[in-house]
Amino acid sequence: MSLEALKQEVLEANLALPEHNLVTFTWGNVSGIDREKGLVVIKPSGVEYDQLKAEDLVVVDLEGHIVEGNLKPSSDTPTHLYLYRHFKDIGGIVHTHSPWATSWSQAGKGIEALGTTHGDYYYGTIPCTRRMTEEEIQGEYEKETGKVIVETFEEAGIDPKSIPGVLVNSHAPFNWGKDPNDAVHNAVVLEEVAKMAMATYQINSSTPRMDQELLDKHFLRKHGKYAYYGQNHG
Amino acid sequence: MSLEALKQEVLEANLALPEHNLVTFTWGNVSGIDREKGLVVIKPSGVEYDQLKAEDLVVVDLEGHIVEGNLKPSSDTPTHLYLYRHFKDIGGIVHTHSPWATSWSQAGKGIEALGTTHGDYYYGTIPCTRRMTEEEIQGEYEKETGKVIVETFEEAGIDPKSIPGVLVNSHAPFNWGKDPNDAVHNAVVLEEVAKMAMATYQINSSTPRMDQELLDKHFLRKHGKYAYYGQNHG
Amino acid sequence: MSLEALKQEVLEANLALPEHNLVTFTWGNVSGIDREKGLVVIKPSGVEYDQLKAEDLVVVDLEGHIVEGNLKPSSDTPTHLYLYRHFKDIGGIVHTHSPWATSWSQAGKGIEALGTTHGDYYYGTIPCTRRMTEEEIQGEYEKETGKVIVETFEEAGIDPKSIPGVLVNSHAPFNWGKDPNDAVHNAVVLEEVAKMAMATYQINSSTPRMDQELLDKHFLRKHGKYAYYGQNHG
Amino acid sequence: MSLEALKQEVLEANLALPEHNLVTFTWGNVSGIDREKGLVVIKPSGVEYDQLKAEDLVVVDLEGHIVEGNLKPSSDTPTHLYLYRHFKDIGGIVHTHSPWATSWSQAGKGIEALGTTHGDYYYGTIPCTRRMTEEEIQGEYEKETGKVIVETFEEAGIDPKSIPGVLVNSHAPFNWGKDPNDAVHNAVVLEEVAKMAMATYQINSSTPRMDQELLDKHFLRKHGKYAYYGQNHG
Repeated sequence: MSLEALKQEVLEANLALPEHNLVTFTWGNVSGIDREKGLVVIKPSGVEYDQLKAEDLVVVDLEGHIVEGNLKPSSDTPTHLYLYRHFKDIGGIVHTHSPWATSWSQAGKGIEALGTTHGDYYYGTIPCTRRMTEEEIQGEYEKETGKVIVETFEEAGIDPKSIPGVLVNSHAPFNWGKDPNDAVHNAVVLEEVAKMAMATYQINSSTPRMDQELLDKHFLRKHGKYAYYGQNHG
Repeated sequence: MSLEALKQEVLEANLALPEHNLVTFTWGNVSGIDREKGLVVIKPSGVEYDQLKAEDLVVVDLEGHIVEGNLKPSSDTPTHLYLYRHFKDIGGIVHTHSPWATSWSQAGKGIEALGTTHGDYYYGTIPCTRRMTEEEIQGEYEKETGKVIVETFEEAGIDPKSIPGVLVNSHAPFNWGKDPNDAVHNAVVLEEVAKMAMATYQINSSTPRMDQELLDKHFLRKHGKYAYYGQNHG
Repeated sequence: MSLEALKQEVLEANLALPEHNLVTFTWGNVSGIDREKGLVVIKPSGVEYDQLKAEDLVVVDLEGHIVEGNLKPSSDTPTHLYLYRHFKDIGGIVHTHSPWATSWSQAGKGIEALGTTHGDYYYGTIPCTRRMTEEEIQGEYEKETGKVIVETFEEAGIDPKSIPGVLVNSHAPFNWGKDPNDAVHNAVVLEEVAKMAMATYQINSSTPRMDQELLDKHFLRKHGKYAYYGQNHG
Repeated sequence: MSLEALKQEVLEANLALPEHNLVTFTWGNVSGIDREKGLVVIKPSGVEYDQLKAEDLVVVDLEGHIVEGNLKPSSDTPTHLYLYRHFKDIGGIVHTHSPWATSWSQAGKGIEALGTTHGDYYYGTIPCTRRMTEEEIQGEYEKETGKVIVETFEEAGIDPKSIPGVLVNSHAPFNWGKDPNDAVHNAVVLEEVAKMAMATYQINSSTPRMDQELLDKHFLRKHGKYAYYGQNHG
């Protein structure tokens, strides 16, 4: 894929955020990576979605050096880059402050799998990171945000392909996927799952997790070699 | 009615789902049955609503053999077929993950009749199924989903014409009706009733059920031989 | 005002219900009265809003005899007529199942004045009726609904001009006003007030009523001879 | 800036309120100030947004004398003027009854900083005023509303530039900013923050405040001389 094609993809994925009601003002950004070239295309900082054009997008290498573009990249760029460097299989990342997922981030709680909507996309609890330390916040904050996400997945032994999103404590969610569009798709699902989990506990505060068998069934009928959902499988 | 007319009906009923905000992405499907021919028309699996055309719909017989169509039918087809085989009077089925009804499914709780909105369409508690067993999930899962729905109605002695919907535990609702459009209508009502029941308990956690006389009055003024609501009755 | 002008007003007020998101399907109706002629114009029963035309509206006298129109009037007509006969100053009535107000009806609780939004339109608690008796429900149900509303206001000594709405227990709200449009306006306010009252108690379950002085100030700056809000007052 | 340019700004800021779903009917108003001329442009009282034109706006001096305009200014004008006189650096003020923020006002509770969305715009708790006294309400009520706001900030030593909004007890929010558009921006953020704070406590009723370091980091990366967010910094 050419860099121009990736820019177009990243542009469309960014424009999908307001369409799916995931962002207020400029509170969100999507990036995509060309793994072969080692280049990341990302939204510029603080630009309104309705004025965003492909030529506004910024191209950076994996160390954050600007390769193309006249605008400053999103202030969250170091988080994106850290995730690309450590989650080797992901092709797109999205960050939003979508309200229901952000409320779970603020509450400092992961979202357990309560039903098949969750299980179709997330193979278990969507984790919430620990709070960051004073040093991390005062240091390279955005990079450290990526670091605490990766730590959360590594310490719990979670495969980022099975749980394509995280709740950053006191902050908001990050999602990823095989490409920018897939990352946005996962962000939409997270918001829906976050809303329903909150409602579920309001209806029944002692709702247990869904059965593991049911989680296996739903996740695996959409993912992996035994998938049979949709037109592209078996 | 010709099969083409039924396809048109099923198409319109599917397209009504996003209009009524009942679906995110492809999370829903509607089918309709021609009882004389014993044929069911159903949405294909994983196709986006804004690209769905009448010729994409799949025609299957009551055992699930594809009679017409180039795409795979919805992965939920065996659930639909099981319901058509056991609920002899229904003409359309809809499955969604509409958020408020799904939250009740996840909470594992039926929705008691709390007011006339509920009573106009559902003649009592909208039940939630038991959780499915490991065997059921690992076996013919989608067919077993239909089975546990029918079991729920049979064991409680509920007439599916009086309660045209169910909450599948840890999953989401199924609705039905005399035709595909009527099934969608009942799904819209369920979502509204689910939202209001949650709010009602938040206002008054010990809200009792509505009086049986009021439930009788409202259900029976819209259904059955003494109905007088609308332009088509007495 | 001619009957045709009143029909036009009633038509527009009915069409305003879906615009303000107060109705699902046909769950609502507006009427208006010509006090001089003693005639009421009301929505026909069960007709969809997007197909409603002025000539569909039904004209009835205060006893419910049809004076003009080919369709059956709303099944709630006897409630409207009872209210017109007993609340002598009102010119329009609206009934909806708007979700937040209906949730308070289902919970069987009146809405206390918690802030100035409420106080600008409702001069105190918006009452919830008692549950209706078996005899009332099995008798002339819709007329009895009007009767229990009037009883609620008379027993508590409430002036229907100061509190232009009521929550019917286990059912849904009725609103009124000086004309059909004003009744719809009050229904919109009730829905907003109902939503905010629920949220207020979720934030602080022991929220006290607003101060009486503040309620006086806000209600009276918009109503009565000392009003100074808007362009039409002093 | 000419007065005509300010009028255009104030018009656009008023029209932004319904676009951002912050107002029902006429429940809101925006003003802007020309500090050099000592003149304030404000919405007229009770005029519908879809009929509002630049020539309807009213120009008053800081004592409330009408300098230009044929309509009565907003009944909240004395509140705006009191704030302009005491908060010397603000250039625009907005008042709405946006539902989630208003619910916090009704609950009589300030909104603590729970996450970075809050911290990006509000440098600490968004305070709720005390209830007003009988004398204040019966006196120059709208001016006294301004007074209790300023008292809230002065007694707690809060800089209105760091916390550009307040919850008036039993009433609703006021916001401000460097110009009318910025004030509306802050009102949108407040509504979003109010909604998420309520949801956060529903998920975890004992959610602690966000860490002070994180609050510092987020507020200061967008405000002040060390800011680096957006295209206009660093």
